[in-house]
Amino acid sequence: MGYENLLWLGGVGALMALIFAFIQSRKVMKFSEGTPAMVKVAAAIRKGANAFLKRQYRTVVIFYIIMAAILTVIALLGFVSPFMPFAFVTGGIYSGLAGFIGMKIATSANSRTANAASESLNKGLKVAFSSGAVMGFTVVGLGLLDISVWLMLLRYVFNRDAGEIARTMVMFGMGASALALFARVGGGIFTKAADVGADLVGKVEAGIPEDDARNPAVIADNVGDNVGDVAGMGADLYESYVGSILASFAIGSAAGYGWAGMVLPLLLAVVGVISSIIGTLFIRTGEKASQKELLRTLRTGTYVAAAIAAVAAAPLTVIVMDGNWGIYISIIIGLLAGCLIGYFTEYFTSETYKPTKELAQASETGPATVIIGGVSLGMKSTLAPVLIVGISVIISFLASGGILTTGSPDYAHLFSKGLYGIGISAVGMLSTLAITLATDAYGPVADNAGGIAQMSGLGPEVRERTDALDSLGNTTAATGKGFAIGSAALTALALLVSYVDIAQDKVAHKLDLSVTNPAVLSGVFFGVMLVFVFSALSMYAVQRAAQNIVVEVRRQFREITGLMEGTGEPDYERCVDLCAKGALREMVTPSLLAVIVPVVTGLVLGVEGVVGLLVGVMASGFAVAVYMANAGGAWDNAKKYIESGEHGGKGSENHKAAVIGDTVGDPFKDTAGPSLNILIKLVSTVSIVFVGLIAAYSVF
Amino acid sequence: MGYENLLWLGGVGALMALIFAFIQSRKVMKFSEGTPAMVKVAAAIRKGANAFLKRQYRTVVIFYIIMAAILTVIALLGFVSPFMPFAFVTGGIYSGLAGFIGMKIATSANSRTANAASESLNKGLKVAFSSGAVMGFTVVGLGLLDISVWLMLLRYVFNRDAGEIARTMVMFGMGASALALFARVGGGIFTKAADVGADLVGKVEAGIPEDDARNPAVIADNVGDNVGDVAGMGADLYESYVGSILASFAIGSAAGYGWAGMVLPLLLAVVGVISSIIGTLFIRTGEKASQKELLRTLRTGTYVAAAIAAVAAAPLTVIVMDGNWGIYISIIIGLLAGCLIGYFTEYFTSETYKPTKELAQASETGPATVIIGGVSLGMKSTLAPVLIVGISVIISFLASGGILTTGSPDYAHLFSKGLYGIGISAVGMLSTLAITLATDAYGPVADNAGGIAQMSGLGPEVRERTDALDSLGNTTAATGKGFAIGSAALTALALLVSYVDIAQDKVAHKLDLSVTNPAVLSGVFFGVMLVFVFSALSMYAVQRAAQNIVVEVRRQFREITGLMEGTGEPDYERCVDLCAKGALREMVTPSLLAVIVPVVTGLVLGVEGVVGLLVGVMASGFAVAVYMANAGGAWDNAKKYIESGEHGGKGSENHKAAVIGDTVGDPFKDTAGPSLNILIKLVSTVSIVFVGLIAAYSVF
Repeated sequence: MGYENLLWLGGVGALMALIFAFIQSRKVMKFSEGTPAMVKVAAAIRKGANAFLKRQYRTVVIFYIIMAAILTVIALLGFVSPFMPFAFVTGGIYSGLAGFIGMKIATSANSRTANAASESLNKGLKVAFSSGAVMGFTVVGLGLLDISVWLMLLRYVFNRDAGEIARTMVMFGMGASALALFARVGGGIFTKAADVGADLVGKVEAGIPEDDARNPAVIADNVGDNVGDVAGMGADLYESYVGSILASFAIGSAAGYGWAGMVLPLLLAVVGVISSIIGTLFIRTGEKASQKELLRTLRTGTYVAAAIAAVAAAPLTVIVMDGNWGIYISIIIGLLAGCLIGYFTEYFTSETYKPTKELAQASETGPATVIIGGVSLGMKSTLAPVLIVGISVIISFLASGGILTTGSPDYAHLFSKGLYGIGISAVGMLSTLAITLATDAYGPVADNAGGIAQMSGLGPEVRERTDALDSLGNTTAATGKGFAIGSAALTALALLVSYVDIAQDKVAHKLDLSVTNPAVLSGVFFGVMLVFVFSALSMYAVQRAAQNIVVEVRRQFREITGLMEGTGEPDYERCVDLCAKGALREMVTPSLLAVIVPVVTGLVLGVEGVVGLLVGVMASGFAVAVYMANAGGAWDNAKKYIESGEHGGKGSENHKAAVIGDTVGDPFKDTAGPSLNILIKLVSTVSIVFVGLIAAYSVF
Repeated sequence: MGYENLLWLGGVGALMALIFAFIQSRKVMKFSEGTPAMVKVAAAIRKGANAFLKRQYRTVVIFYIIMAAILTVIALLGFVSPFMPFAFVTGGIYSGLAGFIGMKIATSANSRTANAASESLNKGLKVAFSSGAVMGFTVVGLGLLDISVWLMLLRYVFNRDAGEIARTMVMFGMGASALALFARVGGGIFTKAADVGADLVGKVEAGIPEDDARNPAVIADNVGDNVGDVAGMGADLYESYVGSILASFAIGSAAGYGWAGMVLPLLLAVVGVISSIIGTLFIRTGEKASQKELLRTLRTGTYVAAAIAAVAAAPLTVIVMDGNWGIYISIIIGLLAGCLIGYFTEYFTSETYKPTKELAQASETGPATVIIGGVSLGMKSTLAPVLIVGISVIISFLASGGILTTGSPDYAHLFSKGLYGIGISAVGMLSTLAITLATDAYGPVADNAGGIAQMSGLGPEVRERTDALDSLGNTTAATGKGFAIGSAALTALALLVSYVDIAQDKVAHKLDLSVTNPAVLSGVFFGVMLVFVFSALSMYAVQRAAQNIVVEVRRQFREITGLMEGTGEPDYERCVDLCAKGALREMVTPSLLAVIVPVVTGLVLGVEGVVGLLVGVMASGFAVAVYMANAGGAWDNAKKYIESGEHGGKGSENHKAAVIGDTVGDPFKDTAGPSLNILIKLVSTVSIVFVGLIAAYSVF
């Protein structure tokens, strides 16, 4: 077949994506930053974001050095491939770079969006979306580049065969996972500590509006959007993207697909890049565009990309897979599932639908019912995404040739073919990531643009336009979160499957993975508990960090004369600094937990215990992440709905109740929830890397 | 050995328990109901509680008739034993009766407790505790009676052998489970709708104190304590008790223990009854007893009972099990786990420890941080219980002869011996249920007594004493909840194991229960989701029902002249009626969900899917139940802590923030959380009953 000679295609896809990202970034930079006041605010935000990322990466480097040393020792003992320490570091660097570039462009695009919006809505949208596109295509491009470089090295320099490459490279995800977790947790704590701190003292105590320049925490709040929502999100999805491809390599090899099993995901990725580029061409709007039309144009772009990818995948799959239409069905299922999860997320969190409207209604009986209502809404909203993922898993398994009847003599073989369907379905879902992520990363830019417009005193018509862009950003952020969670769950599933394959190779006995095995069963219990404790720790972290901001902002209001009158200058930097310190201190424990728990579980309960743990983390992490993201999103939008004049409008008791809901929702949707996406993938990659060690030294 | 001739021992245990319950109830009834005002209030509460239970049971009867008809059809088709329809109905009747008797005595003891407390603290404690003991011993007595009667019938009238009896009787739990769910969900909705409604309008809007006679919802609130906390709790634990014994019958039979495997749990139950009776003799207090001493005396009673049971179990186990000390270890592990979970629950929810103190501290920055803090606290508190249960499972499995190395030729046989250890460990934990439940059921009686004292204007020194009793009741209620959840998880585990045994008998193919099987995996996902959706529905239900009460109470305040001045009479009955209607309407959907989901999952995904579902429900239901119970308990006690004068005390802004936390916590800890206990058992029993049908007709 000669498929082994098509591996360079991934590199071509990577270059296309990176070049397109570069073109988009040139487009953004051509616009003007606006008035001197805007330039000043933007510079402050940029400085804060850069400073935090630098400090964060400096902390993370220590972790990478230690881990690389540990991996080197393990590699010398023969428990992992000698490439592992290097791959771990490159994964971290690429993932960090993806986040860094995304944040870089976002902090350049925010004031430019505000300025462009002062000319026209369409221009504002263009700048913000282009900035998002830089991020989306950079993430995809770097991911494909990392994979391609290693693929080439292993194939042509080290002369490994397909099976070896697949089994080796699936471990490479851990470097990216670990960085993603630090980025998500650290950034999430930063952004919400600043947000909660700014709101509690500024909005509630001092009674000044959001994004008011007199609020000492306002710059920190805007910095937070960039380090949390942009850099964190970038690292997260980089990791899902790379993880799903690498996992499908490994599963494909176990199913006996050889090189073809590796070329297919690469081809899908390349097709996804091209479709995404075409999709972006469909995003434009007229000057008089309503909120709905804005949303429709973004939607059109994503759907066009998905449709093109779906059509193009058909001949490719059928050729590479020797006429196996079942695998094609799996790909379509993945693409479809991504779109469906996005739709249901929107249903539960947008104020245009019933659930959020009812939540706003609950404000009539005070904050307690708002909280109860939001918690119920979030829990109920797990129904659709879980059903979608569950059904997708079964359909893609069966379609790709898997059978569920143990009696057949061919059971094991067909089973592994079915599992490849699950892996490829995850790749399908993520194939058009470049454009999905672009619409998502657009949100924080628009949000920042609104903040800059407010702080530098632009006219009300500009505020109105940036508000329109921002509100749209909330919706795309919510659907983006849904997509991130769904793809993380599917990627984690693929990783779990490849873990089991690899583990069976390493242990002497036949694995008993049946759920009645107490090791598996206890593992599931521990996995669920890890999700709960991890979420608790990250929320505590926000609370503790926010507490410091509250104290500092109160101090500044008290001590700086003329602050409220606008004659005194607040000390923005101190708040940024406090947020950074808090985030860096608080991100360590939960992150380490994610690395240590799977190893300890393995050493005590063996491979079977780890498999249980992974299933527990995955299933409950998925549900809790959806619950938290949607509850948070709905609280946010219920508040916005009331601010639009419903149920008494701004300043009413109902509004106050809704603000409390929104504040509770902040760490739900922007810290704990999204961090779980990475947790469920990281525990899998950590387990895969340490499987040799665990097989050798576990107690049971 | 002749162990088949010892089955009558269960009947003796049942009689002892019931006689002791009767003696205790005589003791309670000897006390006077107090002043005419007290008699009147107590009568109103009793009437409301009776009326609700009657209506609730009437609704439930419809369900039982339909289910019995379905079961009859299935039995005629040969898919379940012909005894099943009858057993289903008797299970429901006994479970309902346990709840009814408990509630009956509680509504007689409340005013008597208040009156006795006006004489002395010691007398108050005695009455309230005796009432709790009636409930505890009735539950245990009826449970043992139901089991013994069926055991005798099947053995001596129908001449079945041990294996047949074990496999048949494990299905009998479903009748009790289903009633327990209705009781918990219905009662939970009633009590919290009344509570939230009374608080929101009375305390927050009208500014009158708790339990004020002018509040139209105050009687409904007190009725709620009885129908939710007493009747619901009774049915719940009846079900765990019976379920754990029946499951260990089935597992013991599969492990080849024959009659001995059935006699052991019966003997343990009898020993537990005797130990509990002795334990109650240790509960007494001096007149000047502090809060701490009151708690200590209750603790002493439970610990003495557990110690006696532990000692007595040693010779019995070793004799019945032919010198197998491993099984004895499993029993001790169960007893120990119960005590430990209770301890950690107290640590996280009592204001004498750091977590709740910190939560109260969070009120300084407003309600949002109180909510975030409580949610984090609840999630973090899952750590200890999950670890305890997970470790108990592994230890009791290994101690009882189970091995985890698949290589051994004896693997399957030893595996099932290990599983018996898990089952017997659950029986061990629940063996002293009579006294554990007594200290728990004491709580609502003391709570009611406080309400009656307030409403009938007793002196401040009486209020002080009933407050002391009530506050103690909060602590025992929290530890009781922890125990209920832990035992439910262990019982569900035992049921799961016996389900797998039975299912393997019914299906033609060898079950592949490994977690990588997509049917199992999707089942796990669906199970987690069921827990979330179920919780959401029950909380929504509270919110909707409470909304109606709010409207009604507001109406009465507006329309009844002289109500606030104390000259007009509120219409208590209308509120009771509204609560009842709301609860009955809202309890149906979540309850049906619990019955339908396992059947539908089975028909689509087969036995493997059901096993996945059970694991998902169990693991996540356990964690969510602990999270909700502890978050709710901590919010409640943080509020009480502030009311005791900390952080600004009653009426301060901090207090208001804490009240919001408490209101959110109400449906968490008293509706959704405890309902999950039953959900995790009911899905197992439903699956067991329908396994034949599913094996015959499932799609995969």
